[in-house]
Amino acid sequence: MTKNGRTAIDQSVVDSAQVANLLIEALPYIQKFAGKTVVVKYGGNAIAGANSDDTLAAFAQDIALLHAVGFKPVVVHGGGPQISTMMERLGKKPTFHNGLRVTDAETMEIVSMVLLGTVNPQLVSAINQHGAPAVGVSGQDANMFIAAPHDAALGFVGEITKVDATIVKKMLAESQVPVVATLGTDSTGQAYNINADTAAGALAEALGAQKLIYMTDIAGVRSNKDDANSLLRQATTLQLRALLGSGAVDGGMIPKIESCVAAIERGVYQAHILDGRIAHVLLLELFTDAGVGTMVSRG
Amino acid sequence: MTKNGRTAIDQSVVDSAQVANLLIEALPYIQKFAGKTVVVKYGGNAIAGANSDDTLAAFAQDIALLHAVGFKPVVVHGGGPQISTMMERLGKKPTFHNGLRVTDAETMEIVSMVLLGTVNPQLVSAINQHGAPAVGVSGQDANMFIAAPHDAALGFVGEITKVDATIVKKMLAESQVPVVATLGTDSTGQAYNINADTAAGALAEALGAQKLIYMTDIAGVRSNKDDANSLLRQATTLQLRALLGSGAVDGGMIPKIESCVAAIERGVYQAHILDGRIAHVLLLELFTDAGVGTMVSRG
Amino acid sequence: MTKNGRTAIDQSVVDSAQVANLLIEALPYIQKFAGKTVVVKYGGNAIAGANSDDTLAAFAQDIALLHAVGFKPVVVHGGGPQISTMMERLGKKPTFHNGLRVTDAETMEIVSMVLLGTVNPQLVSAINQHGAPAVGVSGQDANMFIAAPHDAALGFVGEITKVDATIVKKMLAESQVPVVATLGTDSTGQAYNINADTAAGALAEALGAQKLIYMTDIAGVRSNKDDANSLLRQATTLQLRALLGSGAVDGGMIPKIESCVAAIERGVYQAHILDGRIAHVLLLELFTDAGVGTMVSRG
Amino acid sequence: MTKNGRTAIDQSVVDSAQVANLLIEALPYIQKFAGKTVVVKYGGNAIAGANSDDTLAAFAQDIALLHAVGFKPVVVHGGGPQISTMMERLGKKPTFHNGLRVTDAETMEIVSMVLLGTVNPQLVSAINQHGAPAVGVSGQDANMFIAAPHDAALGFVGEITKVDATIVKKMLAESQVPVVATLGTDSTGQAYNINADTAAGALAEALGAQKLIYMTDIAGVRSNKDDANSLLRQATTLQLRALLGSGAVDGGMIPKIESCVAAIERGVYQAHILDGRIAHVLLLELFTDAGVGTMVSRG
Amino acid sequence: MTKNGRTAIDQSVVDSAQVANLLIEALPYIQKFAGKTVVVKYGGNAIAGANSDDTLAAFAQDIALLHAVGFKPVVVHGGGPQISTMMERLGKKPTFHNGLRVTDAETMEIVSMVLLGTVNPQLVSAINQHGAPAVGVSGQDANMFIAAPHDAALGFVGEITKVDATIVKKMLAESQVPVVATLGTDSTGQAYNINADTAAGALAEALGAQKLIYMTDIAGVRSNKDDANSLLRQATTLQLRALLGSGAVDGGMIPKIESCVAAIERGVYQAHILDGRIAHVLLLELFTDAGVGTMVSRG
Amino acid sequence: MTKNGRTAIDQSVVDSAQVANLLIEALPYIQKFAGKTVVVKYGGNAIAGANSDDTLAAFAQDIALLHAVGFKPVVVHGGGPQISTMMERLGKKPTFHNGLRVTDAETMEIVSMVLLGTVNPQLVSAINQHGAPAVGVSGQDANMFIAAPHDAALGFVGEITKVDATIVKKMLAESQVPVVATLGTDSTGQAYNINADTAAGALAEALGAQKLIYMTDIAGVRSNKDDANSLLRQATTLQLRALLGSGAVDGGMIPKIESCVAAIERGVYQAHILDGRIAHVLLLELFTDAGVGTMVSRG
Repeated sequence: MTKNGRTAIDQSVVDSAQVANLLIEALPYIQKFAGKTVVVKYGGNAIAGANSDDTLAAFAQDIALLHAVGFKPVVVHGGGPQISTMMERLGKKPTFHNGLRVTDAETMEIVSMVLLGTVNPQLVSAINQHGAPAVGVSGQDANMFIAAPHDAALGFVGEITKVDATIVKKMLAESQVPVVATLGTDSTGQAYNINADTAAGALAEALGAQKLIYMTDIAGVRSNKDDANSLLRQATTLQLRALLGSGAVDGGMIPKIESCVAAIERGVYQAHILDGRIAHVLLLELFTDAGVGTMVSRG
Repeated sequence: MTKNGRTAIDQSVVDSAQVANLLIEALPYIQKFAGKTVVVKYGGNAIAGANSDDTLAAFAQDIALLHAVGFKPVVVHGGGPQISTMMERLGKKPTFHNGLRVTDAETMEIVSMVLLGTVNPQLVSAINQHGAPAVGVSGQDANMFIAAPHDAALGFVGEITKVDATIVKKMLAESQVPVVATLGTDSTGQAYNINADTAAGALAEALGAQKLIYMTDIAGVRSNKDDANSLLRQATTLQLRALLGSGAVDGGMIPKIESCVAAIERGVYQAHILDGRIAHVLLLELFTDAGVGTMVSRG
Repeated sequence: MTKNGRTAIDQSVVDSAQVANLLIEALPYIQKFAGKTVVVKYGGNAIAGANSDDTLAAFAQDIALLHAVGFKPVVVHGGGPQISTMMERLGKKPTFHNGLRVTDAETMEIVSMVLLGTVNPQLVSAINQHGAPAVGVSGQDANMFIAAPHDAALGFVGEITKVDATIVKKMLAESQVPVVATLGTDSTGQAYNINADTAAGALAEALGAQKLIYMTDIAGVRSNKDDANSLLRQATTLQLRALLGSGAVDGGMIPKIESCVAAIERGVYQAHILDGRIAHVLLLELFTDAGVGTMVSRG
Repeated sequence: MTKNGRTAIDQSVVDSAQVANLLIEALPYIQKFAGKTVVVKYGGNAIAGANSDDTLAAFAQDIALLHAVGFKPVVVHGGGPQISTMMERLGKKPTFHNGLRVTDAETMEIVSMVLLGTVNPQLVSAINQHGAPAVGVSGQDANMFIAAPHDAALGFVGEITKVDATIVKKMLAESQVPVVATLGTDSTGQAYNINADTAAGALAEALGAQKLIYMTDIAGVRSNKDDANSLLRQATTLQLRALLGSGAVDGGMIPKIESCVAAIERGVYQAHILDGRIAHVLLLELFTDAGVGTMVSRG
Repeated sequence: MTKNGRTAIDQSVVDSAQVANLLIEALPYIQKFAGKTVVVKYGGNAIAGANSDDTLAAFAQDIALLHAVGFKPVVVHGGGPQISTMMERLGKKPTFHNGLRVTDAETMEIVSMVLLGTVNPQLVSAINQHGAPAVGVSGQDANMFIAAPHDAALGFVGEITKVDATIVKKMLAESQVPVVATLGTDSTGQAYNINADTAAGALAEALGAQKLIYMTDIAGVRSNKDDANSLLRQATTLQLRALLGSGAVDGGMIPKIESCVAAIERGVYQAHILDGRIAHVLLLELFTDAGVGTMVSRG
Repeated sequence: MTKNGRTAIDQSVVDSAQVANLLIEALPYIQKFAGKTVVVKYGGNAIAGANSDDTLAAFAQDIALLHAVGFKPVVVHGGGPQISTMMERLGKKPTFHNGLRVTDAETMEIVSMVLLGTVNPQLVSAINQHGAPAVGVSGQDANMFIAAPHDAALGFVGEITKVDATIVKKMLAESQVPVVATLGTDSTGQAYNINADTAAGALAEALGAQKLIYMTDIAGVRSNKDDANSLLRQATTLQLRALLGSGAVDGGMIPKIESCVAAIERGVYQAHILDGRIAHVLLLELFTDAGVGTMVSRG
């Protein structure tokens, strides 16, 4: 009863009905989003944590399935924990300012090494293993992310000033799965460290993506950050703007929510904030009627 | 918990895992057959019988799903029971010779009316209802099936002498789902009544199809026609040739088995004989590791 | 002196000059309409009447010639007489309300059978015989004609609410000759019986056709319905609107004239009302300077 | 009763039938040769003679009609009489050797001027006037005809050593009508005077043309050069080879017949030798069952 | 040390640096103008003068280099001196009116012969010799230049009333180098003699060319026609308009300057007036930082 | 006298002639190799050394010029010195076995980080700075280099078993400049460290490249490794095979020479071994008649 063989024992018709119904439940979603671009931000935490191999494999399968049924997934990633680890191995202490990594020239080199040389190939390799033609790409390639310094105190932390998504569009046209490391560049060729949440939103906007999805390590957006029962299954941009104004949102969620709201206001159709710790959470959110995270729509 | 809404109640993670696993089980099959042509012979019995609406709807959903995930399904149909009913309504008694309908000029007109005017639009409409762009096509269109008389005693029962699948290929290139009524024509424009099992095989061969699937009203091929436990889940063309020679095959199965063997020998990759009475049998056979009918491969 | 042979006897130069001049007279019309779409409404009467075989063959030759010289003909047909005949054979009495056929469920099934199973394949086969690749298509295919009930008293007589001509455009792009049976469908898949005159006009408009041509059994439009000498060889939409207002038009001509006027007002370049009883009337109207029917232009 | 107007007087139905029948007679030829390349050699005599304006206009109409109905005509021309006239105006006496013009450097310059500056634009302009997009091209353009000296005594009379028909193929792909002046060039850029009969055959061969047609000032090939009644309406390559061997052929016809035979032996489907003095002889030969000249086929 | 061989003696590194630097200096210009259309007006004087072979060869190399590095050059030429010479050889005295040649019917024939039969093939052949696929084209081909009489006193001197650059665009799309003889035509097919300076400007405008370049026999535009030191290396359209108003411009320069200004005002990016007597002046102007003639920009 | 400005002082005509002649000398090479693929192996030494910024900038300019004139350059790089440095910074001692780096799992991670995160983006950024759209790509992307262990003692040092150059071909078709880091992968997704000299040869072969170029830190191939005067300017594969057999070749040159010979024997047209220390050595070798390194041809 493996992919390669067949057993002589018939599957019970009762079970069969369940199998078929689940596939049929997915049908309208497959039809609706066929040919549409879906930008998925995948955090460095997920790869760095315990069980990271299983989590990564399940994520790669999900991306491969989206690709197989005709979606155009784009993966965007950072690599915070891995960068800190490498800095420490090289005897350098990570320091942060307002939640952003202070990035001197040496740190910038480490950021580049870790994102392009460690995290990106891990993702590319995992997705390739499941049959989708993933290709790594840096935000510096073909001047995709043009950046300016965010704050003098932060060194080479960049703010995106312009996105040229041509290269990603060409990859999508070739049925490839782009895996984007969030580095930027300025007109002199200087590299910048770009926040991956923000970059994902900016890229989704430049691509005219249908969906922007954040894989996080929380269950979704809560209307009250301290109440696990206050999880929002659906939210409008108006609701989220109000929530941001109320101060009820957890700090780490602020850039994600802001990027969702901004992206939808600039043409992305829907955004999702999902719990990356649940195996196959992407499929459950996108292909079942109930869904499992927070879905944000215009309104 | 409908396609259009969302509930606030979380689906249990245990159930989620099952959902996801079933989708992931389908992944390698989706990847393997993406872009491949699958010819499905659908019998008139299925539409004519009790519960025919549900059966037809489930079949149409399956075809729509195959189309949505990137297969190129082609539906081929006859309409024996419906033709007999209409003949009787018009005061004409159906007669058969060696299992084939004696087809005089008036009968030929009724065959054309029923296949093109009743059965074909029913299938086209059902598939369209589930979101795949089905288009009806007659074997006479653009000289698809060129036919010669099969046997003088049978009148306008035709044997296919040449298949020009150009029009079906163009429809597939346009991402349409062709629904083919098995009429043929000769060089004078005379219409012929063509056996749908044979026509499906000949078309699969002309299209270089990956799969040829017969939807029947039995469970599959038995190695002993009288023993329900002798169902073959897999068979090679050599095995089936031997079985045909042994006389152990049920009469109605002979043309299906012969068409399977011939099609595989001329380039079709695999053939399947499935029980059309099981809802969504196409999905269960194509997307699960166990499968439910008889799969025939070269060997 | 056949297509396949040659005689040794020279054709006289005098005759030759006539032959050549007729071909040269056609040249500017061929150049002007090359690549342009021409929608031709062909009535069921023509096929049903005496000499119907000759009439049909001549019509099919004309369509094949239009196709050969680079026009893009689209044939639209109904089948009133054939439907009534079949209803009577099945013991059902045709009834009409305001000139439209009362269409209950059983009648609708007969309409479908006759249009798709009898009339459409006859036209397709005749055109194919003369070398143009005709393909039958129903207004239900790929949701071409979306319809709503016209009048509760008429049952499944439909009024077109939306035309999606994509499938016909694709056929034209493939150099096929679409032959359209005027059935419609609603969002539940229910079939409707559509007036063929109206459908031809709506399709011409959706295709941005250059010409809309009605093949009728009268000589053309008369300014006085009772005076055979009042035939109009040319007319403007303004003139025809005035004529419709004056009450001088014969009842059966009203929907044809209204469709001509409406189609031209929505972008069709010219409309023609021709006498389908004259052999090759299409060629005479389109390729000679004098023409033979009524040509309608904007103005 | 002009192209732009219409008369109120009906054309008699009897006449109409003739008109239509002539068009229908042309149908199978139009269908057979649609998209096929037809190389027509047009002699300088025709343009130089009395009534040359009418002859040229009729020829241009014929080419425009071939183009309009989907053929791909290519016109190849020389300009012997015009060259001789210009030489005399410039005080230079034309001299011939074995029927070929002795071509010194100054003569070569005159040949180039006359062919490219007089004859070619006349043909281009006449065809353009009748609605087909003619474009003049020299055999020197893009190295179409590579030539070597034919005979030291003849100076710059060239023999074709290589044909590169790329530029003509591109013009045909753009639906243009190439009008080719038969000059050649060698690898140093030196111009050569090329026999137009031979060049037409070589170009037809390089294009894989369907037909090669010589417009001459005789009625066709005679089996006996002195007997006007011995005109051959059809001939095979074998017959013509025998005829050439018999010495019964008129001197001026030898290169034309040799080119026909050679071209057919290298893949051209049919060749025709026509009397260019008959108005519209091209149409009469190509579109009527009887034809008017000599048609040569393989055999 | 030829193209085909190599010497064993090393080139000194010092020289190498110079070679490389010159190539690198050209890089930004190559990148900036890749794929852009450059219309070059080449005067008949250059070909007619002493050393005309060397001048022509150098010009042809320059055009071939522009083509090789990705520019799309279009050459436009007249042939004044050659026309006058041929008129005299034919015993006809050239006469001028306001600087334009009085062109009666016989002169028009000579103009056509000389431009199409002498000058155009010389240019085509020279460019072909250096590896770029040049193709001659007359302004009459495919109705490129539609003309009306300029002045009754001048006969067939034409003023351009409409430019259809389709044929040149197709040639450029095929990577050919069009060489345009400046003849025009009216709707009756009458040929006209067109001023080449004006024609080049009109064609540049119709092509949306990036650059319009006049090859002249002076060094460039002087702000004072009598002062060789007043050469302008750069000028704006405003400056030139002022200069034209001031009367300080030499007569022969007026049409060139007016065409430059008009072309830039209608969308051409830059115009250049160069000294065609300097070998390879095109390369020096286009590929070096300093340039050598007058460059005109909008402003 | 900058790219952006112009001086009023005329460049002397003498100098101009030199400028132009150098550009014209390059013309035949540009024409010959337009559209052809050129694989350039760039060593890590060049970037790591003193003056590395200038060297890198000159190399990037050369690649940009090749790209601008229509070549299709592909850059392949390793990064030996940089890997050793990073290992030492991380407290790990580089060890070698038969000249190849012993690569345990931790070393493999460092190799990946350095090649993809340091060297590759440096090259991509430098080329982008000079106007050519460079894109980094890893040999693991889309399974470009499939590898197997070279030698158990070496750990994850891989030998290429299969090259899939699809992704590089697509980049070239999009006019991008691929910059390839020589990592490989096996079917489990394990990364391997691949020798860059070998990888460049294998990729050139898979691409059907016209040229394979090694940028080294020596002057070229010597027939006697100890004699600087024995530099070969040209060599055949036969000569080099003999030289390899003679033992006269320097160790470091062996894999380069072997790759050259193998690549030419499998279809690459020419190979070059150049001294990367000479600024713009690529241009001098490719665009001047004399050249500066060793050019290898079949023979």
